[in-house]
Parts: sequence; C-alpha cells; structure tokens
Amino acid sequence: MQLRIPGPTPLPDAVREALARPMINHRGPEFAELINDVTRRLKPFFQTSNDLLILTASGTGGLEAAVVNTLSPGDRVLAVSIGYFGDRFAEIARLFGAEVVKLSVEPGRAADPAVVARALAEQGPFKAVLVTHNETSTGVTNDLAAIAREVRRTDALLLVDGISSVGSIELRTDEWGCDVVIAGSQKGWMVPPGLTMLTMSRRAWDAYATARMPRFYWDLGKARAALERGQTPATPAISLFFALQTSLGLMEREGLAAIAARHHRCAERVRQGVRALGLELFAEEAHASDTVTAVRVPEDVDAARLLRVMRESGVVIAGGQGALAGRIIRIGHLGWVTEADIDEVLAALERALPLARRTPLAR
Amino acid sequence: MQLRIPGPTPLPDAVREALARPMINHRGPEFAELINDVTRRLKPFFQTSNDLLILTASGTGGLEAAVVNTLSPGDRVLAVSIGYFGDRFAEIARLFGAEVVKLSVEPGRAADPAVVARALAEQGPFKAVLVTHNETSTGVTNDLAAIAREVRRTDALLLVDGISSVGSIELRTDEWGCDVVIAGSQKGWMVPPGLTMLTMSRRAWDAYATARMPRFYWDLGKARAALERGQTPATPAISLFFALQTSLGLMEREGLAAIAARHHRCAERVRQGVRALGLELFAEEAHASDTVTAVRVPEDVDAARLLRVMRESGVVIAGGQGALAGRIIRIGHLGWVTEADIDEVLAALERALPLARRTPLAR
Repeated sequence: MQLRIPGPTPLPDAVREALARPMINHRGPEFAELINDVTRRLKPFFQTSNDLLILTASGTGGLEAAVVNTLSPGDRVLAVSIGYFGDRFAEIARLFGAEVVKLSVEPGRAADPAVVARALAEQGPFKAVLVTHNETSTGVTNDLAAIAREVRRTDALLLVDGISSVGSIELRTDEWGCDVVIAGSQKGWMVPPGLTMLTMSRRAWDAYATARMPRFYWDLGKARAALERGQTPATPAISLFFALQTSLGLMEREGLAAIAARHHRCAERVRQGVRALGLELFAEEAHASDTVTAVRVPEDVDAARLLRVMRESGVVIAGGQGALAGRIIRIGHLGWVTEADIDEVLAALERALPLARRTPLAR
Repeated sequence: MQLRIPGPTPLPDAVREALARPMINHRGPEFAELINDVTRRLKPFFQTSNDLLILTASGTGGLEAAVVNTLSPGDRVLAVSIGYFGDRFAEIARLFGAEVVKLSVEPGRAADPAVVARALAEQGPFKAVLVTHNETSTGVTNDLAAIAREVRRTDALLLVDGISSVGSIELRTDEWGCDVVIAGSQKGWMVPPGLTMLTMSRRAWDAYATARMPRFYWDLGKARAALERGQTPATPAISLFFALQTSLGLMEREGLAAIAARHHRCAERVRQGVRALGLELFAEEAHASDTVTAVRVPEDVDAARLLRVMRESGVVIAGGQGALAGRIIRIGHLGWVTEADIDEVLAALERALPLARRTPLAR
C-alpha cells in the first residue's frame, strides 16, 4: 500500500515499533527525559532557538493555540489566505473575536509579498499577520522569507502555519523572524497524527502576557511552566512522543538539508511525471510545493472514480477540499518518500486514468 | 514493570499491536468504517443512546469542549468540586466567562447530594452543573445518581467529568440524565492518552445551538457533521482509534458488569491490603473509588522516597497533586488490572515502606 496523501504519511518500521512500547508515567523521570530530548532535537528542524512546546492535538489545535496565546478580542489581524487552510486560520482568529482583514489569493497562486506589503501599509497597523507557509489544499508554497521581510518592517507578530512544511521544506524561523510556527506530527515527521508543535519567540511571549482570548487547554505559558518540570499540563499522547523520538533519529541521520533536497527531487519527479501524462498542475510553477502536488482533473475524468481505481490498485492519494472537490487530485510526497515511491504512484495514475474517464452516457 | 497510576494504564499486547499498524487515509473508507464502529461500540459503555463524539486531545480538552459547546459568557454555573479535577473543570468555565458558583468539598469526601440540592435551590437558577464522577486526585467517587436526581429537578444541564469512571465504574448516562459525559482514552479503556470522548444529550444540543463561548477545534457540531461522513473536522489520532477498536473487543468480551465487578474486587483488595499495612485511606469509606485509591503517607515516611523506592523495584504509583503532594500516594487500579497485579503492588509497598522512613537526621 502506497499512502500518498499530504498527511498522515507512511510510518517507518522503527517508528511503528516505537508506537507499540508500553505506557509510562507521564509525571515520572522517563517521560521528563523523553519530552526534554524531543523538544531539544525538534528545534534544529525549525531552525530556531525559541521556546518550543508540544501539545496533544491535531495541527488545527496548534493554529488555535497560536491565535489564543497571542491575541485579544478586537485585535486587528491580517490573514493572508491562499486556500482552505489559510481560510481556516483566519476563521479561528475571527471566531475568537479578532478583527480579521483577509487577503485572499486565487487558489493555485502564492501570495505576492508586494501585495502583502501594500496591505500592511494601507490597512494597518495590525497586531498580527497570519500566513500559511505551505498550503496543503492547493500545493502552493508561499515565499515566506519575502513575506516575513515585509511583516518585520512593521510591529505585527508573524504567525506561521508550517504544518505541511517544517521538517520537509526549509523554514528559517529565527532568521526570517517568525514569531509562532506551528507544525503537526503526521506530516514530514513520519509520526501518526495527534501532536502539534509550536515555537514562541520573545515577542510572542510579550504578546502572550497581555493577550486576553480565553485559553486553558492551549495555554502555552502553562505548557512552558510544566516543561520546566519535564511535564505537560494535561496528559500527553505518550505513544506519539515515543514515535517522534524515533523519527527524529532517522531525520538527524539524513540531515535537514538532505531531507529538503530529497523532497525537492521527489516533487520535481511528480511534476514531470504528471505533465508527461498530459495532465496540468494546479499550482503556479514558481511556487509549486515540494510536499504536495495538486493536479487538475481533466473535464472527461471522474475524480472520485480515479481515486477509487487508484486506491483499489494500492495507491491512496487525496481529492480536492471544499470548492476544489472533484476538480483536483493531490499527491502527498512528504516524510518517508523516495523517488521509487513516486514512480509507483505515477504508474498507478497512468493505469487508472483511462479507467476513470466518463462514459458518454455518464456525462 | 507494574504501571499503577490512575492513567495512563497498561496496554494489553493486542492493543500495542494495533498501535503499530500502518497509517491510513483519514478521509477514506477504512477510517469511516473505523470511527463508525468505535463510536457505536463505545455507547453501551456510556449506557447511552445519545450522540458520542471523539476528539483528538487529552481529557482536559474534553472538559473544555463540554464547557464551550453548551455555555455562553455570563451563564451561571454551579461547579461541584471535590478535588483537583473538579477545580480544573470550574476554572475552565470561569476562564471562558461563566459566572461560577463553586461548591467545594473537603478533599477525601464526596459531595452531599442534599448540599447540592440546597445550592441549586438557594443560589440558582443555574444554566449548568459541573460534577466530577470520580475524582482522580483523592480517590473519591461521587454518588452521581443522587446528585443527578437533584439536578434533574431543575432546568440546569448536567456536565459530568467521567474521565476516570466511564468504562470502569458504572455511569448510567441516559437513566441518570447526564447531558454531557466526558471520558479519556488512557483510563479504563486501556488505550494511550490522546483521545477524549463526549456524549451529548438532546438538551445539550439545544444548549449548543445558542451557546456563545468561542469554539473551533472543540466544536462538537462540526464533529457531528463530519461523523455523518465518517470523518473528523481535524486530522484524528488514527493509531489511537486502532487501539480503541481493539480494546473495545476485549471489553465487550468481558462485559461492562464483569468489568465493574473486577474493578470493585481489585479496589477492595487494595483497601484491605493498605489497611493491613497499618496505613490509612484518604477517602471516606462509603465513597472510596473503585479505580484509584489514595493513601495517607505517615508522618515519618518521605512520600517522594517511597515512590522512588517502589519505582526502582518495578512498581510505579502516583503521588499527590497540588496541596496533597507529599501527603498522599495514589494507586491506580483501572483498565488492565487483576487481583494478582494488586498483590504485587501491595508487596512492593510493604517492602518499600521501611526504606522510605525519614531518618532522625533528615527530619
């Protein structure tokens, strides 16, 4: 079985073995060693020396945590959205009472840093800017370095959804000045879903001190205080910590630069292969993602049938989300993935396409 | 190793094997079958036909979800607290803007239903009553049937923290009229931490429709809508669903009545054994919990040393939380536990006690 959706990603055998380890006391010395070790070893992948906290939740929980730990109701926020997950980030801020100015970009395109700069200048000041680094729903990677440069010319906090980028695509948290970066265990980390990791800059902690959105489970100050004792405020998903510790070993052995290069090679191979099948990429070429590729479904192909035929042949890819359902398919190529895996996916796609064409009757 | 804390609980081999299963697509047919199966099979253990939703989070996340899905800022809430986790439930409601009237009971004692009735009559009306069924921090089980009877004489919603009770101690959700019951995977379910399960009555859904506390990740309406498609709003902790499905098989084979009886036998054995060692139980006898036993630490015994000596001998039990740190030890006996396990714990405690006595010098 080839699981090639943009997360959850396949688990290496060593990670699966780690998942099966017996439970331990989450208030004991073994867990303290575990969380301290994992926290320390995650930071180089975020390229940060900021605080890093791990919460038991999906990545969406991490987005909510980023918002409620730094903002107050009424705060003006610029939400740069290039798709489904950008919309989600904006919606969370709005629901918790932020005054959200949304900068929406046509799906398939990246945000233009100059447009972000103009919004900052003309509609600011903002307390925070929300940006998705890699938009999983469209397969587009924003030029976060350039966007961050514009944000850093203002006093706004920069909250970055790095869920499908960190650990797979380079994200220089400190160099670029990202105040909060959110990740999720089921992406490049090769760990099942259930942990979200967040970095907090000095400026983010300053904002935390005065932020008034209600928070309890997501309270990163409590998480930081607990971490000083090698603990978490609520019972942590211990099995996933075991898995993460193991996968970090695999990732360290390969190294971040090599991991990013492998992701780029796999992505290039997907893009070339898809084009060779006569299909069109959904993302603009200059910003095509190295972790997920969205492909336009031709008019005469039934997307649902295509996914089903591929699944029956042992290759699981994803469909479109929201308004893109039926219009695109998405191939995940992050985490435990090689060029040989990509070749299998492409071969399965090639075999499935003719079987998924709409019959004249079904049209 | 004997892990005898009140959660996480030990994992049967079959559950550990389930944890190690390869990832699947959380938007595919396999997961739909999995979540539908697990949801349906959980309900008999909650003794309910209400909706049941599963969120990726610790039990504390479930408490937060119960609050924000049913209440609005300014709502008057009666929080019956008999310990640390009752305080936590109250604190969550307060943080999200409820007007909390707290009915605190001396640690080690259960709430008196007559006192609850008086509070309801004299300080009401209340929008909701928050109650802990089994207080993990003190080893006390409230008479929830009697408390619920009082609450049901009013219009207040009854939100029940059943985290360390459901599945181990009988909790008749529907018969007693509990509107929301919260559970956590790492307790009697024999699954690692990371899932919280909540039941929602018709009245709870009515409250949901008008509740105005901000919610996104915890939104149970979204969870219910996603469940109709066999999905979850955010990426679920798939491995823990695998584990839960397997553990439900074990639990069904034994049956709820037999599980509850086994927990009672184990608890009785702990209580007798502890008394036989000359130690005093912390909980009042009539309300001693069948899932966790708190034991007073004698004046001349160093609690931290006692825990350490026992851990080094292969038996892990818990200390006291908050103000009870150093004053009590807690033995968990829920989930995968037999009388033989209890005997090992008692033997380890007997051996450790003399080694943990304070020397005159250290006093």
